[in-house]
Amino acid sequence: MSVLVVGSVALDSVETPFGKADEVLGGSANYFSASASHQTRVQLVGVVGSDYPMEKLEPLKARGIDFAGLEQMAGESFRWRGRYRHDLNSAETLETRLGVFSHFKPKIPAQFTDAEFVFLANIDPRLQLEVLKQVKKPRLVACDTMNFWIESRRPDLLELLKHVDLITLNDGEARQLTECANLVQAARWIMDKGPRTVLIKKGEHGAFMFNKDEIFYAPAYPLESVFDPTGAGDSFAGGFMGWLARTGDLSEANMRRAVIVGSAMGSFVVEGFSITRLLEVTRADIDRRVADFHRLVSFEKALDA
Amino acid sequence: MSVLVVGSVALDSVETPFGKADEVLGGSANYFSASASHQTRVQLVGVVGSDYPMEKLEPLKARGIDFAGLEQMAGESFRWRGRYRHDLNSAETLETRLGVFSHFKPKIPAQFTDAEFVFLANIDPRLQLEVLKQVKKPRLVACDTMNFWIESRRPDLLELLKHVDLITLNDGEARQLTECANLVQAARWIMDKGPRTVLIKKGEHGAFMFNKDEIFYAPAYPLESVFDPTGAGDSFAGGFMGWLARTGDLSEANMRRAVIVGSAMGSFVVEGFSITRLLEVTRADIDRRVADFHRLVSFEKALDA
Repeated sequence: MSVLVVGSVALDSVETPFGKADEVLGGSANYFSASASHQTRVQLVGVVGSDYPMEKLEPLKARGIDFAGLEQMAGESFRWRGRYRHDLNSAETLETRLGVFSHFKPKIPAQFTDAEFVFLANIDPRLQLEVLKQVKKPRLVACDTMNFWIESRRPDLLELLKHVDLITLNDGEARQLTECANLVQAARWIMDKGPRTVLIKKGEHGAFMFNKDEIFYAPAYPLESVFDPTGAGDSFAGGFMGWLARTGDLSEANMRRAVIVGSAMGSFVVEGFSITRLLEVTRADIDRRVADFHRLVSFEKALDA
Repeated sequence: MSVLVVGSVALDSVETPFGKADEVLGGSANYFSASASHQTRVQLVGVVGSDYPMEKLEPLKARGIDFAGLEQMAGESFRWRGRYRHDLNSAETLETRLGVFSHFKPKIPAQFTDAEFVFLANIDPRLQLEVLKQVKKPRLVACDTMNFWIESRRPDLLELLKHVDLITLNDGEARQLTECANLVQAARWIMDKGPRTVLIKKGEHGAFMFNKDEIFYAPAYPLESVFDPTGAGDSFAGGFMGWLARTGDLSEANMRRAVIVGSAMGSFVVEGFSITRLLEVTRADIDRRVADFHRLVSFEKALDA
């Protein structure tokens, strides 16, 4: 099965202690798609300006990503400029120019409307709700969000929660949304509002999946060098959703595997600028990293000594 | 085999958002011992003042902790007063009165000098080195340290590293000691200085064990409510060392189990003030939490879909 993603298609300019990149592919939908494309076909819905370097999307098309839902409008593309300091923990935004993205009204092409796996990347919850009106009967709808929408669009976000099966957000956002400092309590609060699954991302500290009564924890891979953290969350989501769409299996055991595939993709993307590493890695690389994750956390519980 | 611990025996007064406790058992050696006593016999070396409520140590003696190395000196006992705010992430020290602890010169009783497992809790590295001169031929020596010693006793700490098999420290301390932001690089730096095992504790974000070429990661247990974080690190160390001493097995597989036993003890101690929970929990509780940890991180890596 394929996966539908609705999100931003941007141009990023990033500085890290290890180098800089100008006007490279960015945006949640690009990261998500490049990551998910290792598992399954991807349908992308987004908007770019007349200045977007469309030829740079060719490698993504070659990977089976369908851009039929990418609208090109007169005007400037969404641009983000940011910098990471030595600890790489948080991006400092130097400039955001929304351009045509500020007029984004997602239109789902007819051939995408029977999507079974839908990822509503981090956009205005009102638009996320609009997307849901256009898809027929998805098996799994997941959404992302951010502090800005939690503050400015709280009622819409709460309405959205009634209609999604899963939400991904980071620990700070989970605390902000729920006003619970404790993440177990925060996850429970969110599940009470609708989603049966809550994925809380903690950056370099890994991710929790709360799925009904189960809690699963996946560490971030302990990389010896992180090059550029941009896009880690969306690449995580792409690996996760891609794996679920590929297998069509929503059991707890398979969702755990999906979290690990997501974590693997998140660990790859930060090894280079933009989506570079996502285009380079192979199925064998992904399998190897999944095995590394297994080794990282495995222990025998037999305690009879 | 038993385990020898040298550290502080204190009286703590703690305030958390959930309550307060006055003049309760505290100090690294108390936490370590109460935790380790679930696995094996413990020999404790420390110092208290003439005002220490010795009767409060009875429950620890009943658990097989040998206080023959606890010196009682004229003067005041070590007292710490601290407060945790809502997020419980860091203690705010309101008062530290070292009392007789500032004159602590650890003397290892003759019957403790053939200790095979030795834990040098967080004290002046010069004293930690003095202890090592007094023990004959330990199989495993582990030490803890803190920011204060990293700053003020760096040469002594580096000398100590040559003589210990294992060091436990938190992520901030590892970064401070090594001047590496990346924890994998930091662990390698430390291993180059002597220890073959580095345990990096990340509080609510779990712990890494770097053991020769292996990396093992254990999450902190996702508790719904943390009552008082004091002593989590020492209880972790007590569970870890206690398990190793009990089994006498220093294989990678068994050290991983030891990390999980330590994590279980760390997760119990924060459920109450002081060592209360460490005295309450049973072997069955520990086994159950170890099983919960196993469930928390387990996934099947089979990726053929």
